[in-house]
Order: sequence, then C-alpha cells, then structure tokens
Amino acid sequence: MRAAVLRDGHMLVRDDVPEPVPGLGQVLVDVKACGICGSDLHFAKHGATLVGLIESMRGTQYLGGAAVDVGRDVFMGHEFAAEVLEVGPGTEGPPPGTLVTSVPVMVTLEGVKDLAYSNDLPSGYSERMLLSAPLVLSVPNGLEARRAALTEPMAVGLHAVNKSGITTGEGAVVIGCGPVGIAVIAALARKGIEPIVAGDYSPMRRSLATGMGAHHVVDPADADLFETWSRHGGARPLVVFEAVGVPGVIDSALRDAPPKTRIAVVGVCMGGDTITPFWGIAKELSVQFCFGYELDEFAGTLRSLAEGEIDVTPMITGEVGIDGVAGAFDDLANPDRHCKILVTG
Amino acid sequence: MRAAVLRDGHMLVRDDVPEPVPGLGQVLVDVKACGICGSDLHFAKHGATLVGLIESMRGTQYLGGAAVDVGRDVFMGHEFAAEVLEVGPGTEGPPPGTLVTSVPVMVTLEGVKDLAYSNDLPSGYSERMLLSAPLVLSVPNGLEARRAALTEPMAVGLHAVNKSGITTGEGAVVIGCGPVGIAVIAALARKGIEPIVAGDYSPMRRSLATGMGAHHVVDPADADLFETWSRHGGARPLVVFEAVGVPGVIDSALRDAPPKTRIAVVGVCMGGDTITPFWGIAKELSVQFCFGYELDEFAGTLRSLAEGEIDVTPMITGEVGIDGVAGAFDDLANPDRHCKILVTG
Repeated sequence: MRAAVLRDGHMLVRDDVPEPVPGLGQVLVDVKACGICGSDLHFAKHGATLVGLIESMRGTQYLGGAAVDVGRDVFMGHEFAAEVLEVGPGTEGPPPGTLVTSVPVMVTLEGVKDLAYSNDLPSGYSERMLLSAPLVLSVPNGLEARRAALTEPMAVGLHAVNKSGITTGEGAVVIGCGPVGIAVIAALARKGIEPIVAGDYSPMRRSLATGMGAHHVVDPADADLFETWSRHGGARPLVVFEAVGVPGVIDSALRDAPPKTRIAVVGVCMGGDTITPFWGIAKELSVQFCFGYELDEFAGTLRSLAEGEIDVTPMITGEVGIDGVAGAFDDLANPDRHCKILVTG
Repeated sequence: MRAAVLRDGHMLVRDDVPEPVPGLGQVLVDVKACGICGSDLHFAKHGATLVGLIESMRGTQYLGGAAVDVGRDVFMGHEFAAEVLEVGPGTEGPPPGTLVTSVPVMVTLEGVKDLAYSNDLPSGYSERMLLSAPLVLSVPNGLEARRAALTEPMAVGLHAVNKSGITTGEGAVVIGCGPVGIAVIAALARKGIEPIVAGDYSPMRRSLATGMGAHHVVDPADADLFETWSRHGGARPLVVFEAVGVPGVIDSALRDAPPKTRIAVVGVCMGGDTITPFWGIAKELSVQFCFGYELDEFAGTLRSLAEGEIDVTPMITGEVGIDGVAGAFDDLANPDRHCKILVTG
C-alpha cells in the first residue's frame, strides 16, 4: 500500500509498504482524514535532536518505549479518522464501515507503542493502518471524518487547560494562535473563562482565535499582550498558555506576567532555552509543562465536536492526498495561509 | 551609631550612621542577633545585575517599591532579633526590654519599604534600627535572640513547602543543604513527609540535614540523588526542592526527575539559566518559583522555634560583631565550615 514517510528529513511517498493485517485485539482501518501536526514538522527538522533528548532523559518509558531510529523510514500522522475495514480474529470491534478514531497508541504484549514516529507501524499518512480495538472510539452523531480527525489536537488544548487548573473568575493569555493555541482557546471558551486575550502575528490566525472564543486579540507587532491583558483582565488571577514553542517565549512571559501568574507550556521548544529564574522567583510564578491528554479528555473532545459545541471547520485551511504531504509540510511554514492541512484519502 | 554597610561590593563599618528616631507607628530596637543570608552575599557580588533584573521586569511593585541605588551605601541584614528600646509617640508597642522580631519590611505612608537592601533604613547589621509597630512580634517562651533571629530563614523553608503543595504520602528530594535547604527539610519533617532525600557536597551540611530530619543524605560526588530517591521513594509522587541557586540545577532536575514531579525553586539563581523544555513537557513536570513567606508562616515559624519543635542551634556555626561582617562574608564562601553566621551585638 501507499504511505508518506519521513526519510532523511524529507517526506516522500512509498508504494511498497506491507499491507497491515489485523491480529488479536486489532482493527484494520481505511484512513479517511489525518491532520498534519506541528510536531511532525518539528520532527522532520529536528528528529535526531529529539531522539537525543529522549535518550538523555530519565523516565523515557513514559513516552511509549524505545526511541525511533531516524536513520530508517519513519511513519507519522497521529490526528486521524478512519473507517473500519476488518476486525482481527477473536476480537470485538465496530462493524466494517464504522467511522472511528483513537488515541494514537497501540497496545501490544510488549507494552504500549506510539502510533506515530514509528519505524514499524503505519499511521495516519498511510492508506490503511491498524488500531487497538479497546481504544477505538466510534464517531457519533454523523460527524464527518474531516472534523473527527481534529479530535486529537483539540484534546491537547483541553488537557493543557485542565492541567493549568484554571477556573471561572480567572483569565487567560494565549501566546500563539496556531492549532495548539486555537485548541486552548476553544477549551477555555467552553469552560467559560473570561477574558481570553490571544496574540499572534498572523491576521488569519487572529481571526480564527476570535471565532473560537477569544475576547481580545493582539498583533504583537502593534500592541503588547500583557498590557492588553491588564487593561481587560484587571486584577483577576492569570494563566498564560505558551503555545508557540520557540526559544525566548517562556522567558518573556516570566518577565512580563503579573505576580503569581501560572504559565502553562504547551508549545514544544526544541533544544535549550534561556530563562531568568529571578523573575519567576520575585513574582512567585509557576510553569506547568503540558503534554498529550488523558483518555477521557480525548473522548470528551470527540463528543464536543460531534455535538457541535466546538466547530473546527474554520481551522481546516487545506486538503491534500498522500502525494501532497511533502508540499503541505512546506506550505505550513507560512502561518498566514494555513492553520490545519488534512491528508484525505 | 555603627553599622556594617555595602559600598562598592564590599562590606565596611561606618560609625557615622544617623541615630534612628522612632516616629508614629515605629519602634526603636537594639539589634541582638542578625543572621547573614546567602542573598546578602549574592547582593554584594551581583547587586547591579539584580537591580537591572528588577528594573527590566514588570510587576516590580511586588518587591516593595523602587530599586536600591548600588552606587550609594546599602544597609543589609534581614534575619534579626532585637530588644525594644523605645516606642514612638502615640504608638502601641511592647515595653522596653522586650525581645522581638519582625518581617523585614517597614510600613510607611508612601508604601511598604524593604528593611534590607535599603539606602536609607538601617537594618540588622546596625547597632539599632526601626521596626513597624504593627508588625513587631514578641519572642515567646524565653527563646534566646540567637535562635529567634533564625525565624526569617526558617520561614522561607516553610513557605516553599506550603507553596509546593506537598502532602503526606508524597516524598521529597532536597538539592542543596545550605540554610535554605535545611529550612526546607525542617518544614518537611514537621509536616511528616517521608522519605526526605537530601544532597550536598559538604559533610557538615549533610550532617545538619540528617539532624533536621532528612531520612537519606547523598554526596552527589559519590551517588546519584534521583537514583537514591527511586530506591527509597518507590512510586510515591515526588516534589523536588531546588535550594542551590546556580545555573544548571533546574535543568538537571528536569532531565532526571520522574514523570509528573513538581519542582519548587527556592534557590535564587542570578542571571540567565538554560533549561530543556522538552524534558519538562515529555514528563509533564512543573516548576514553582518560591519567594519569601506570608505573615502567618513567619509567626508560625517563630512559635515552632520557641516551643522547641525545631531546634536551629546546630545551624549556628559562627558569631561575629559588626566589625566581623566583612570577614564572615568571606568565610561563608566555604560551605564545609559554615551554615549560618550570626552578627551579635
């Protein structure tokens, strides 16, 4: 079958990927839509650095087993919706034709393996893939595959909001309105947080932020995000969501945030970053690093999308086939044109 | 009167400091004992850097007004116990002869001013100083001045422990057993936290840590702190207290701590520090920067010392007069000889 894979830092299409065969506890699915995630772009660019960071860290078992070998082809694509083709022998699963999604991991007898950044398991940029039957969620309410595929990135935003502990009466500043920032804004708005002040250099992204529920949006080239916050947020406790992931953003938040602010870091900055601990200490700030989501947050997000509580349609700014993945990776470098590009089968 | 002051980065003794006269709401006291704090050593070395960091940060009002002018003499000494000499006119206060202590701030009509790092207000390295009458706490239970002076640094430890949210059933790793680390250990032990694993290169400091309630102490030259933790702490949730304050310590905690660990930063690192956000993200760590204490934590610490719940006597490793402050600053650079040096009048 065909799949777009990462080889030597570039995406290319293979048509010789072995056809996956569902075993016990597995479901074979036909991928209908898969979002391209910023993490995939990061991985294409910094894969070796990332693997080095994982290997030099303790507690790697938390990340789902051994690091991927960047010298071999890497399968990617972890934001997918797919149609059931076949349920493995002796396995319970939804009937063929059912639209499903899943957290992107595979339960195996050797442990939980990532269904992304894998040398062995085809994932969302493939024609077909295997899912773990116990993790498969049927897409309810007739939600189309294109929108169901955004369950995963929207769950990342919900998790960051939950992890931050933000609660009604507190306000939020969201730095960066890419897909992660937009997912954070959606979860904040659903929770009734007010005001939500968001900043991004891109007019298109600021407009998405407003549509998703941000009360005030700022172009950092024109206006200061934290001054805007203090004008609208007053003396409310503040939670800052760092959804950019480039060096220097955490430090500028430490410098500019009001005393006692909590900073939730959900943008993934590669390599080292310089901070000024004194600013954090003098104002007793905290930094909560956030990653992924819990199973119930994923399932709850799917329900929110299916019931129309969150409309992700405006986030989908492009669609390509498997042949178009490499070009889409290049296009996503331009934040004025794109938010989320889907690979649709 | 006489006072040791900081001039051009060095401590020297002046004998021409104007005699303080208590006004409305003030109490004149005779300083009996004042601890030398690591922050004072930091300030002597990095005062200009620190003032620059304060001025470049927003929310400076939190730090008690305008930054000090390092081009002028600076009064220091904020860990004091003193005897009341005179209560200002129209002011209620303890009778002369009463041993007291106070949080090191002065309430004025222009706002709250720091009683340390001030160009104008003599503090604990002076013969006499003024306190704010409403903030003065009488030292109970016959606690001697030498031990009462340690209320302030011990309150810093209690505050960090409270701020971390650590609770019974969770364990702690304390990096660094200087006065701040020892204060953290004392507060953890009082709270019944177990195990407390502490690390320091100095045998003297490790011995103090054990005496204050650490269950396992480690020389980082011989054994790994986090391996020691995992041997004794098992799968308990972990809170790490960073009580060293030199570049690189936060990053090594991010690298080595188990998933979901909370890191409380109570050591004050001057200037920039490099961290690897990816480690924090992959393991969903958090960093809580800690500073100072609340009034009730200060008062509670004084009570704990007075009732013998915490014995700080072993921490006092030296005593000097005002003439000896400069030499004591040099001596404190050697962690094998000293924990806390008191300036006693």
